[in-house]
Amino acid sequence: MPLPTELNPTPRFLMGPGPSDVHPRVLRAMATPVVGHLDPGFLQIMDELKVMLREVFRTSNELTFAVSGTGSAGMETCLVNLLEPGDEAVVCVHGVFGNRMADIVERCGAKLTRVDAPWGQPIDPADVKKTLGRGHPKLVAIVHAETSTGVLQPLEEISCMTHEAGALFVVDTVTSLGGTDVRVDDWGFDAVYSGTQKCLSAPPGLSPVSFSARAIEAMEKRKSKAQSWYLDMSMVRKYWGAERVYHHTAPISSVYALYEALRLVLEEGLEARFARHQRSHELLREGLEELGFEFIVQPEFRLPMLNAVRLPAGVEDVPTRRRLLQEYNIEVGAGLGEFAGRIWRIGLMGCSSTENHVNLLTSALRTILHP
Amino acid sequence: MPLPTELNPTPRFLMGPGPSDVHPRVLRAMATPVVGHLDPGFLQIMDELKVMLREVFRTSNELTFAVSGTGSAGMETCLVNLLEPGDEAVVCVHGVFGNRMADIVERCGAKLTRVDAPWGQPIDPADVKKTLGRGHPKLVAIVHAETSTGVLQPLEEISCMTHEAGALFVVDTVTSLGGTDVRVDDWGFDAVYSGTQKCLSAPPGLSPVSFSARAIEAMEKRKSKAQSWYLDMSMVRKYWGAERVYHHTAPISSVYALYEALRLVLEEGLEARFARHQRSHELLREGLEELGFEFIVQPEFRLPMLNAVRLPAGVEDVPTRRRLLQEYNIEVGAGLGEFAGRIWRIGLMGCSSTENHVNLLTSALRTILHP
Repeated sequence: MPLPTELNPTPRFLMGPGPSDVHPRVLRAMATPVVGHLDPGFLQIMDELKVMLREVFRTSNELTFAVSGTGSAGMETCLVNLLEPGDEAVVCVHGVFGNRMADIVERCGAKLTRVDAPWGQPIDPADVKKTLGRGHPKLVAIVHAETSTGVLQPLEEISCMTHEAGALFVVDTVTSLGGTDVRVDDWGFDAVYSGTQKCLSAPPGLSPVSFSARAIEAMEKRKSKAQSWYLDMSMVRKYWGAERVYHHTAPISSVYALYEALRLVLEEGLEARFARHQRSHELLREGLEELGFEFIVQPEFRLPMLNAVRLPAGVEDVPTRRRLLQEYNIEVGAGLGEFAGRIWRIGLMGCSSTENHVNLLTSALRTILHP
Repeated sequence: MPLPTELNPTPRFLMGPGPSDVHPRVLRAMATPVVGHLDPGFLQIMDELKVMLREVFRTSNELTFAVSGTGSAGMETCLVNLLEPGDEAVVCVHGVFGNRMADIVERCGAKLTRVDAPWGQPIDPADVKKTLGRGHPKLVAIVHAETSTGVLQPLEEISCMTHEAGALFVVDTVTSLGGTDVRVDDWGFDAVYSGTQKCLSAPPGLSPVSFSARAIEAMEKRKSKAQSWYLDMSMVRKYWGAERVYHHTAPISSVYALYEALRLVLEEGLEARFARHQRSHELLREGLEELGFEFIVQPEFRLPMLNAVRLPAGVEDVPTRRRLLQEYNIEVGAGLGEFAGRIWRIGLMGCSSTENHVNLLTSALRTILHP
């Protein structure tokens, strides 16, 4: 067999639902020589990463680290460690990722109750309230930034009613973290997970997570082992904690990348970063609306980093995305689930959230749509 | 908070149980700009990676790819997709990693039967035979290269009796793949997993796996969903296969690294690579025996890439390893489990398997032990 050629993927402008453009400093960090997962130098990097991650999550939770898998592994980590067979769980579903949580809850053998909202709209706290009145859930799970619909979900009211009902509050911040405010402590999250390849602009491969003291207590009170060995927090936390007990070999290079990405986030400052994401979003909105695209989410619930838009009449989905990719090296995202073929998802995440990115996309679209 | 400083881990010679030294070409591959997980350029890289992986596994199995997690995630992938609650499973245990498989089998709700061998010895096929006569297991699982003990497990006889009993043969090749012969098809493996950070010398983060047609049939006949969403092959295979259905965001940069590492393996050639591992092992053996170290495994079952040795009388474990690390930047591995504090595990894996590596370790040890 002739060997495949040298790696040579065409560089792209990543303006889909993630991954986003990765900063050269983060790419360089990936090329740092690998050391052992118990090397004192690596343990120090892990400790400093945890400190930075707490700042980005705005939490003082000791148990804050990165799971050795992508965002979905973080989702699974939160749910399989908190749920045991027979537990009740409420999952709010207003897109693909709420559905995914519901699927995992069922795989845990827990009793699932769904609170649904139409795609493109946030969950109505009144619906959660009603559901909470009818059972005794161990947790309520919800997506902060629905990557499939572009909805920013308000969380404080639902968090309060969840705690009043004695349940744990589990939040998906895969797409929001680093791009809009995420206040783990102030908003009462008990378990939260994110991804590296969205607004943190590191390559995909790790899932930052954080657990409150209440969540840890619930994990410690389990009667059965978690169904996943790989994601079992009772062991993973002894590696990321002071004990340093070997569990599995940490993905060293991905930890390097996240470390450098978090340094970039904190150098910029969270507020400045959120403002940048908001400005890019507004610029994109103007440009897209001029071209006839329509946002599917009401203004007050729009995510700045994930713009879900209906195409102008007569514009075809696949051929137009193909031209953007082939002629302009711009990737935008297709619709998922019930939105497949009907919308685009345009990401302005992390390093991809700049005026230049907006300009090159809207300019290219102008040429393609009005040649 | 002052920001943590630039990444600056001290470079090491990695001669423990993995990770091993990573080739500069692989480090450079990690720094390749990230593209989307559905980018045509990336899909081509995935396809070429699969072709190379089949060659390294010596298989024609179509379903051969890399799981988005470390070796333990590959182990979990094989077991949770093949087992359902109530199934019978035989696990051969002669070290930490056999124990880990047994733990996962129980988490699957399967009925576990263990076949044990003393640590440092291989599993006796006669013991497997007896066990197979007493039940109707769906699978037999075994570790080819026990990283905790340094034992190379002969597999062909056990494979034959497993198939005669109508069971699937599941093999851990985390430490063997790329360093000694692994013949998935000839030896009748139905499910096999490995790791990237051992003899393939890529950074940790992915787990190469391969499944036979019989294994796929067993997965397709499941009555219940796999307990892990993240590792559910019924979905993951549709992303790595022709359908390209989005499941989770692939760890792009880790795929780049594995791609380049496989190119290096195949450029060298498997037989040449195995011979190199054997030569390094023999050189190390001579040097260590001169210094009074004793191999704990009988010669015919010794792994070339993982040398488990008892320390000479009077040599202390922790202080000596600390001196090797601090004064010479050499990492060797401590004992695990019942061998903790009693042995060292010296790895000669992939790029770390060279005459120079052996020389610098034995020279340093000579100076430390006989100043």
